[in-house]
Amino acid sequence: MGNQGTAPAEEAGRDQPQIAAPLPGVVVTGASGRMGQMLVRAVLDSDACRLVAALVRPGHPWVGMDVGAAMGGVPVGVPVTDDAVSAIARAQAILDFTAPEASLATATLAAQARAVHVIGTTGFTAEQLARLRPAARHAPIIRAGNMSLGVNLLAALTRKVAAALGTAWDIEIVEAHHRMKVDAPSGTALMLGEAAAEGRGDSLADLRTPARDGMTGARAAGSIGFASVRGGDVVGEHDVIFATEGERVVLRHLATDRAIFARGALRAALWGQDKGPGEYDVADVLGI
Amino acid sequence: MGNQGTAPAEEAGRDQPQIAAPLPGVVVTGASGRMGQMLVRAVLDSDACRLVAALVRPGHPWVGMDVGAAMGGVPVGVPVTDDAVSAIARAQAILDFTAPEASLATATLAAQARAVHVIGTTGFTAEQLARLRPAARHAPIIRAGNMSLGVNLLAALTRKVAAALGTAWDIEIVEAHHRMKVDAPSGTALMLGEAAAEGRGDSLADLRTPARDGMTGARAAGSIGFASVRGGDVVGEHDVIFATEGERVVLRHLATDRAIFARGALRAALWGQDKGPGEYDVADVLGI
Amino acid sequence: MGNQGTAPAEEAGRDQPQIAAPLPGVVVTGASGRMGQMLVRAVLDSDACRLVAALVRPGHPWVGMDVGAAMGGVPVGVPVTDDAVSAIARAQAILDFTAPEASLATATLAAQARAVHVIGTTGFTAEQLARLRPAARHAPIIRAGNMSLGVNLLAALTRKVAAALGTAWDIEIVEAHHRMKVDAPSGTALMLGEAAAEGRGDSLADLRTPARDGMTGARAAGSIGFASVRGGDVVGEHDVIFATEGERVVLRHLATDRAIFARGALRAALWGQDKGPGEYDVADVLGI
Amino acid sequence: MGNQGTAPAEEAGRDQPQIAAPLPGVVVTGASGRMGQMLVRAVLDSDACRLVAALVRPGHPWVGMDVGAAMGGVPVGVPVTDDAVSAIARAQAILDFTAPEASLATATLAAQARAVHVIGTTGFTAEQLARLRPAARHAPIIRAGNMSLGVNLLAALTRKVAAALGTAWDIEIVEAHHRMKVDAPSGTALMLGEAAAEGRGDSLADLRTPARDGMTGARAAGSIGFASVRGGDVVGEHDVIFATEGERVVLRHLATDRAIFARGALRAALWGQDKGPGEYDVADVLGI
Repeated sequence: MGNQGTAPAEEAGRDQPQIAAPLPGVVVTGASGRMGQMLVRAVLDSDACRLVAALVRPGHPWVGMDVGAAMGGVPVGVPVTDDAVSAIARAQAILDFTAPEASLATATLAAQARAVHVIGTTGFTAEQLARLRPAARHAPIIRAGNMSLGVNLLAALTRKVAAALGTAWDIEIVEAHHRMKVDAPSGTALMLGEAAAEGRGDSLADLRTPARDGMTGARAAGSIGFASVRGGDVVGEHDVIFATEGERVVLRHLATDRAIFARGALRAALWGQDKGPGEYDVADVLGI
Repeated sequence: MGNQGTAPAEEAGRDQPQIAAPLPGVVVTGASGRMGQMLVRAVLDSDACRLVAALVRPGHPWVGMDVGAAMGGVPVGVPVTDDAVSAIARAQAILDFTAPEASLATATLAAQARAVHVIGTTGFTAEQLARLRPAARHAPIIRAGNMSLGVNLLAALTRKVAAALGTAWDIEIVEAHHRMKVDAPSGTALMLGEAAAEGRGDSLADLRTPARDGMTGARAAGSIGFASVRGGDVVGEHDVIFATEGERVVLRHLATDRAIFARGALRAALWGQDKGPGEYDVADVLGI
Repeated sequence: MGNQGTAPAEEAGRDQPQIAAPLPGVVVTGASGRMGQMLVRAVLDSDACRLVAALVRPGHPWVGMDVGAAMGGVPVGVPVTDDAVSAIARAQAILDFTAPEASLATATLAAQARAVHVIGTTGFTAEQLARLRPAARHAPIIRAGNMSLGVNLLAALTRKVAAALGTAWDIEIVEAHHRMKVDAPSGTALMLGEAAAEGRGDSLADLRTPARDGMTGARAAGSIGFASVRGGDVVGEHDVIFATEGERVVLRHLATDRAIFARGALRAALWGQDKGPGEYDVADVLGI
Repeated sequence: MGNQGTAPAEEAGRDQPQIAAPLPGVVVTGASGRMGQMLVRAVLDSDACRLVAALVRPGHPWVGMDVGAAMGGVPVGVPVTDDAVSAIARAQAILDFTAPEASLATATLAAQARAVHVIGTTGFTAEQLARLRPAARHAPIIRAGNMSLGVNLLAALTRKVAAALGTAWDIEIVEAHHRMKVDAPSGTALMLGEAAAEGRGDSLADLRTPARDGMTGARAAGSIGFASVRGGDVVGEHDVIFATEGERVVLRHLATDRAIFARGALRAALWGQDKGPGEYDVADVLGI
């Protein structure tokens, strides 16, 4: 169990002559959602930061409750609030897996607070991404469609392998997710496809093949294909397949616990504590 | 190396008092194609039958050549011919992976010769299948979209598992084939889908989900999904996935050598030697 | 959230003329362990039974605490106890994933209470299994090394496929588990190996090949091989591979959530409520 | 079909004023073995070189036959010989998948001929490798335990990923091969294990865990495990698994046609034509 509500490092300081730096304070937005609760849990479980507020949308029934109790567990001493302005003013980092417009509003507040804004939200339009830019002039923004260490490593490998192997190696990306997922291919599959296209010095828009159904004709040389599987509660599996005559190389990532996304976001938030303003991604965090 | 052209069992008979039964004579149709050459090879490699003719379409450049030489190897003593009538008249079995109308014409000749007609041809319409029926009143017809032992076993298992597990288990079928394949999903994937639908007491037409691309919405309970991968020279891989909360069962078949389809066809031809007229499939051959 | 402490069906009965049957009362043994806590959770989450006691070994620090609070959550109104005699006397079912001698002691109490004893404990010797038998003359004992629906289905399929395919198909069993697992192959892998051996009309003791390392020589025809992978927090994965020339059939089970074992045990307990004394396994529960 | 016996480029030269360089002449050693025949086939199928001799051990029954006919096909105009001295004297490259002592003898002749010596032979002792060194002072020696492009790429990726991920990620290597393979783990699996150990700044000897069987205890942090599967005619499959809490990265190579090893050896031979004396491996050939 981690530290929250108050910063134990400060309390410990009373008994010791040296002054310990307080642990970074973290705000989680969208704290009542499935991913929000994961983020709250990750912060509470960490010894390297403390939870200063759990934010929900105005009027949410959890407002005023202790977030631990609201999540069905024991109280943790941190209230749920819908007052974003004062919550973020006290934060050194914000973990934000919500929706594009909500994240844009949060970015403005984060910039004012000079807090690291970790954005796991997906579905931004190009116009929305442009509106995110000004905030990054005041504080670090770390944004990724998938915060897992393994997936971001896979994307880096995919870029490298696509560059090393010529078009005699066909590239296919297969992904599997739970039955509730509403879109296909997954954002992560598209991210891997972008990495493969970059490795080939091209854009995914040029190389992407629609999902195959019916008389498709033979595979176009150099194209990148996608296939999507849905079922059960699969957290997320991605295969990048390079296939040629007589051999195949497959780069695979399996996520079996959504907590990896929350832990990845938290690691990004801590990494960003001593970084200057700017836009970053997980590859920066990993140093790959 | 097997026996061909003449039946060594008969020759051996000269030195021995007892009369050995001649080995069944086999005709391969479409002998110059990739699958046709596989079938010729399988017959030549077998000790249980002999090749009596390699049939090609009228006017094919191979006509009159020795089939072994035509295939780029050593002569085997069997000529390539385009005279279907006289070739089939001498056959106890015909191995036929061609096209629907060609197979229908062959079926008439096979019926007249009382020869076992093994049909690996795919793409028959319902009307064409109806026209196949009269021939089966005179001789055995063994027809399957996939002649491999493993795939037909997989179909039987799929039916059983789909029946045993309720609709809380989502069914997905993933297949991979070489880059030259022009249709998706594969005929074998659809055969497995039919087996799954039968296990659920329904038809595939009712349960089949189109390949996923874009905003698909959540998975429909009880539906059967398909995903197709194309690349390299993959012979054929099929996964039938049953996925529920917390666990998955996967039934998988990997074909790594096209020769299994030829060997399966040959086994069917030999199995059919003592069977009466009628329509059979590989499940009958396997006794599953 | 399910029912516990008291039987709401009885309470509901006060307002309604008909008398509803009380929900079966369940005792969980070894309730403080990882699997024990899963079982407690499964009972609390079920609408079809109620938790009457959470048993721990004498003197355990949790004794007297509310089991919900002891597990780090909210109180649920059921105390942790080390008084097995009085706890089991009030039970209609016992969920027991402990150790062989502990399960033998529990079996005696379960028999006296005529309660269904679901045993997920592994590692019984033949002599210990013999000592379990008398208890089964008084009440149902349902015992399995793996309580998941999928794994038990896989074992049934393995038996069938091993019987259908001759020894030209080599059988290999590959399993993966988390880094803390101390034995190899897994009990489930051995269960699948037994099923394969039975399908071949032989015993696993005769067919089992030790894990390969060094100069092993070529594979012995008809043997059954095992390979074990350990890493991360893998819950449990098992592949039964049938490999021959040019093709493979693979039967695979993936467990991604330990809750499936708890839910399987609970389903077995409910299934056993109207069964007579005797020894049962999960295949009986599933009707496969 | 490629060029052999004579160099067509020279013949073509008669009709053209410019003098084309003759295609490099290749000798295959151990030409009657399974791999030797693959190598002969690869040279015959290539347009970039010509076969000058097929070498077998003294007194082999094939000596004096045409190598095409000896392999069961049509004559190709190149005789099988057991005269290594005169065969290698005419070679620009030697493809050699034989045994350590045979390869050492060949290396001496190759050095005298200033011919590129491609060695796919495995099982050299440290002492034998030392004896190989002098030959590399006169001509290029390209040696690899696995000549496939994909496997050597996989080794490079394995080194990188092992370095990027800490010891919180367990490394396991799983390999599958055909039923006739006599040793485990495969040489390629050990090569991948070496790459992983190097990535971690250690040696495989320090990190390698024996194949698991029985009471192994929990996995040692930082160790590298191996598991070997044998069955059917599997050409070669290797998985390098990195597993941590909640996620896994898997790097996989599938070989489905032994011809990739022959093609890889030939590509190495051609790459080496303009290289100076020295010892090289496939990573040099690939430039990775």
